[in-house]
Amino acid sequence: MALNPARRAALTDAAIEVLAREGARGLTFRAVDAQARVPGGTASNYFASREDLLHQTAGRIHHRLTPDPAALADLLGAPRDRALVTALMHDVLRRIDQDRAGYLAMLELRLEATRRPELRAALTDTLRADLDANIAFHLGERLPGDRDAVVLLYLGMTGLILDRLTLPDLVDQDGRLVDALVDRLLPPA
Amino acid sequence: MALNPARRAALTDAAIEVLAREGARGLTFRAVDAQARVPGGTASNYFASREDLLHQTAGRIHHRLTPDPAALADLLGAPRDRALVTALMHDVLRRIDQDRAGYLAMLELRLEATRRPELRAALTDTLRADLDANIAFHLGERLPGDRDAVVLLYLGMTGLILDRLTLPDLVDQDGRLVDALVDRLLPPA
Repeated sequence: MALNPARRAALTDAAIEVLAREGARGLTFRAVDAQARVPGGTASNYFASREDLLHQTAGRIHHRLTPDPAALADLLGAPRDRALVTALMHDVLRRIDQDRAGYLAMLELRLEATRRPELRAALTDTLRADLDANIAFHLGERLPGDRDAVVLLYLGMTGLILDRLTLPDLVDQDGRLVDALVDRLLPPA
Repeated sequence: MALNPARRAALTDAAIEVLAREGARGLTFRAVDAQARVPGGTASNYFASREDLLHQTAGRIHHRLTPDPAALADLLGAPRDRALVTALMHDVLRRIDQDRAGYLAMLELRLEATRRPELRAALTDTLRADLDANIAFHLGERLPGDRDAVVLLYLGMTGLILDRLTLPDLVDQDGRLVDALVDRLLPPA
């Protein structure tokens, strides 16, 4: 069987749905085949092992969660102040709301990573590269705040996103807390 | 069979280990019996359903994660400044390090709550009561910072704890970030 990139993407998208709906333990080749509505045995042609499936799914989630460059360029046509950072953080929440399954699947993979050192190393590398890119972007664009401020903002947003996805009624989720987080962690300009 | 509280606690402790190790989907009566080293069928005498097991386990986690009043009293023999809040946050991390399984099991339950509205409502009520108690404590003890500051500190710590448990090499975890979080979110005194 010829392996094609579109089918590989469809299979990893199916894996994301299975992860979000059933958790890591529910992620089997059989479940991926069923979710993708392909003949039984298809997933096993595309992934060398369940470990390989987990890694390729992590890569696919990362791809899906990457912001659209055009949307980002639109946002960046504004002064480099806290309001711009706040707008960027609201854009993160908007993307999460549009791809709940992708973010939930990443949380499932993070918990699975506590049991799999190789997956933990791979996720650490990927998210570390993201965080470093965010820091470089923030400092390069001369947005207000230093390196620590970006890391603390990342931590606060991580907590907010975990609540938003799993217990959305726990803290106010209308965006006011995002504004407060940016206002208190970053200097005015 | 007489139901006794010590055995119920032992069974929910076993459920916490199973949740942390295998995820929510691995949590069955059979797995709890095996983990607790009790005869097959014991857990089914203590829990009306798997839903009931999840709820009672959530209660047990909450009980395990509650700070020891004596340790808290010790910490509170200090001036009401940022250093005291920092010490309290380090105490949270110390408790997490001593009960990784408890915190990981709570994360598994939060993901399971995305699939179970009743569990979501129960976890929301429990964590909301905790957060309200933390706010009341903070304001009552006249620690620096207002209500929003306590909520933002909670969000930042939630992100830090998620990283610490699942991807501990992602951001610096030597405690410096906790100090920075408190210093930037709270006023000096």
